[in-house]
Amino acid sequence: MSAPAPSDQPLRLGIAGLGTVGIGVVKIVQRHADQLAARAGRPVVITAVSARDRTKNRDADLSNFAWESDPVALAMREDVDVFVEVMGGHEGPAKDATEAALRAGKDVVTANKALLAHHGQALAELAEGLDRAIRFEAAVAGGIPVIKVLTEGLAGNGMRRVMGVMNGTCNYILTRMEEAGLPYETVFEEARQLGYLEADPNLDVGGIDAGHKLAILAAIAFGTQVSFDNVVLEGIGRISIDDIRRAGDMGYKIKLLGVAQMTGRGLEQRMTPCLVPASSPLGQLTGGTNMVVLEGDAVGQIVLRGAGAGEGPTASAVMGDVMDLARGLRLSTFGQPAAKLVQATPAVAPNPAPYYLRLQLADKPGALAKVAAILGESGVSISRLRQYGHADTSAPVLIVTHKTTRDAIDHAIAALPATRVVEGEPVAIRIEEL
Amino acid sequence: MSAPAPSDQPLRLGIAGLGTVGIGVVKIVQRHADQLAARAGRPVVITAVSARDRTKNRDADLSNFAWESDPVALAMREDVDVFVEVMGGHEGPAKDATEAALRAGKDVVTANKALLAHHGQALAELAEGLDRAIRFEAAVAGGIPVIKVLTEGLAGNGMRRVMGVMNGTCNYILTRMEEAGLPYETVFEEARQLGYLEADPNLDVGGIDAGHKLAILAAIAFGTQVSFDNVVLEGIGRISIDDIRRAGDMGYKIKLLGVAQMTGRGLEQRMTPCLVPASSPLGQLTGGTNMVVLEGDAVGQIVLRGAGAGEGPTASAVMGDVMDLARGLRLSTFGQPAAKLVQATPAVAPNPAPYYLRLQLADKPGALAKVAAILGESGVSISRLRQYGHADTSAPVLIVTHKTTRDAIDHAIAALPATRVVEGEPVAIRIEEL
Repeated sequence: MSAPAPSDQPLRLGIAGLGTVGIGVVKIVQRHADQLAARAGRPVVITAVSARDRTKNRDADLSNFAWESDPVALAMREDVDVFVEVMGGHEGPAKDATEAALRAGKDVVTANKALLAHHGQALAELAEGLDRAIRFEAAVAGGIPVIKVLTEGLAGNGMRRVMGVMNGTCNYILTRMEEAGLPYETVFEEARQLGYLEADPNLDVGGIDAGHKLAILAAIAFGTQVSFDNVVLEGIGRISIDDIRRAGDMGYKIKLLGVAQMTGRGLEQRMTPCLVPASSPLGQLTGGTNMVVLEGDAVGQIVLRGAGAGEGPTASAVMGDVMDLARGLRLSTFGQPAAKLVQATPAVAPNPAPYYLRLQLADKPGALAKVAAILGESGVSISRLRQYGHADTSAPVLIVTHKTTRDAIDHAIAALPATRVVEGEPVAIRIEEL
Repeated sequence: MSAPAPSDQPLRLGIAGLGTVGIGVVKIVQRHADQLAARAGRPVVITAVSARDRTKNRDADLSNFAWESDPVALAMREDVDVFVEVMGGHEGPAKDATEAALRAGKDVVTANKALLAHHGQALAELAEGLDRAIRFEAAVAGGIPVIKVLTEGLAGNGMRRVMGVMNGTCNYILTRMEEAGLPYETVFEEARQLGYLEADPNLDVGGIDAGHKLAILAAIAFGTQVSFDNVVLEGIGRISIDDIRRAGDMGYKIKLLGVAQMTGRGLEQRMTPCLVPASSPLGQLTGGTNMVVLEGDAVGQIVLRGAGAGEGPTASAVMGDVMDLARGLRLSTFGQPAAKLVQATPAVAPNPAPYYLRLQLADKPGALAKVAAILGESGVSISRLRQYGHADTSAPVLIVTHKTTRDAIDHAIAALPATRVVEGEPVAIRIEEL
């Protein structure tokens, strides 16, 4: 990609979307005009904005900006150099306006993870064919500049694994369940009332939103085309307060954890509940904060922690991209030319790992021996086991296995009912080794 | 700074210094040749190297590189585009060769924190006057790409405070003292025998090395000229195992913590032992790992964690800079033109904070009342107090104060001996609020 000499002319932004993020960007540009100009070597200004409702009362002075009701019209304005897309939605206006902006010779800065996860490859090819940039720091992990760290700062590394807790709402729910001892349904309802959930809550609790982010990181880390369809998704809806407590007893926390790694059997992308050591940075993460862990063959493990959402943090990420463009810093969308990104073969099964098992064991002689025998026959060996006292006719048993395959675990779980000593459905959750 | 269109010609490195870091860079360039070329859009190659001793056995194949015994000669070679300075030392050959490289039209990548801390402003002016880049990601916090995050990723923020645990040896010593219950002198000697200490150990335990890093971060964060002379330095040599334990009892850890912030009374730069909450990311940091905390007015708090030293991590940081240059990403040394950086007025005293006080109180009636009176007269109010049982004629008393000034604390400590109820020297350590 060629780098035109940076201009000393003002960089002119057109902002599509005046929700939290858009208004956050307006505030930064207004508050820090001098500082931005000093850092970029040129002024950064907003010339035009668009949003659905012009009459809505907004917490910023927009009187100096031209108004467009149509984001596509905004994207094509003569007086816009960078189209800032902070509307959201991966089809319709956001996509149309982004493509229109690129075709009209504008660079694009977007906070839209869904757009990138679904159309990242096509948009990157379009942008690079037109010698334009499409930047998306705000799409992943809010204020944490993880796209920049991964694409640029760690460019000397072969990446081994990328992990992250990247949906603050899920982490809030899990933390609140643990701290208040409340069941999932109650905390879910609380979160809804607090306005923490997307209109379609499955985007959050189903892991879709976080899965979008993981797919974007995986593309950069492994030089592959974004492939959200190959992210294995499992939400937090089946996590019980009981498992949160029992996992805690064994020294673990339960997180909705994204993991991407390139294995001999293909690219593994998972966004699923996992156990992580309670003493690890991921284990210590509480509430709505995000964390990304990047593992490279030279750098080892880098951990990044910060706010994953909100006006200021997301606008900070948008402005990081804007400032790069103002300074003339340009590189390929995913860190290497889109045309050269390969389609990764998805791994059919996750890498072997230890698993956490919880069973309800009948109070019968030889019950534990029967379970142990089934596990052994399935190739699952036990690392730690804890049987709890009980007043009832059955008792919970917790098992941490040695490293094994998901197949072996599933095989064992399928075989357990025949023993007639296990009540209800056993729970198996992967323990991600850090 | 103008950005020449990036070339598709190989980017040619000359590496001065073949210690741990230099060899780490050689290994990455050799191991990841294809990947680096894909990411940069051009090959990255090493053409020449220099070191003191050519005959030394090194863990890399250097046979394809020209050899220079003089780093200045290396810096001026026709076939070198980027001079990689990983020799160390802030005067003599490192400085001479860096200047020679810039004057010969080369860009410079350096891992040399002392060079930047002492001569950063002059070198930035020299480089920018010649339209060259001098890059130094590896100089601060090893593998953590904190220079990039601060200069680029957070460029939309007014920075409020920058903090860090940036000397792995000091954090190792403090962690080991706590875990093994050993006194400073014993662990210091262990660290020396393990080869963790610089030839002049005061660079580590006196806070100088970490102070260099803080001065560099402060310049970028606040748009000021690097001013290492104004960093208030206090090493860890006076931290006792007793204080580590007592602080732990009160919910804190002791860290050698760097803090830079712009206050109404000027720029505050401190590298001193501080108490931090045990449950905070800084408090949970153990061993040789580094952590940097960046606080911006939009992004809030960003925490970065990773290896602060070692072959791979430091070489990763060097390669991050090299890859930026290979990709044609160029900006001012400290994020804005060196000629425009202002000389900051140093703050005469640190911002108010709570303090931790430890006194040995004589077992006399009214002893505590006398201490409390002195504190009150000095304007120091008590937030929490803990008196320990004792078999002896005196007992330790721990006090956590409300927010107060260092002056008030010093005033109180000076007045305490007159009470004749305090034995020995009271200890006062700042509690940094996170």
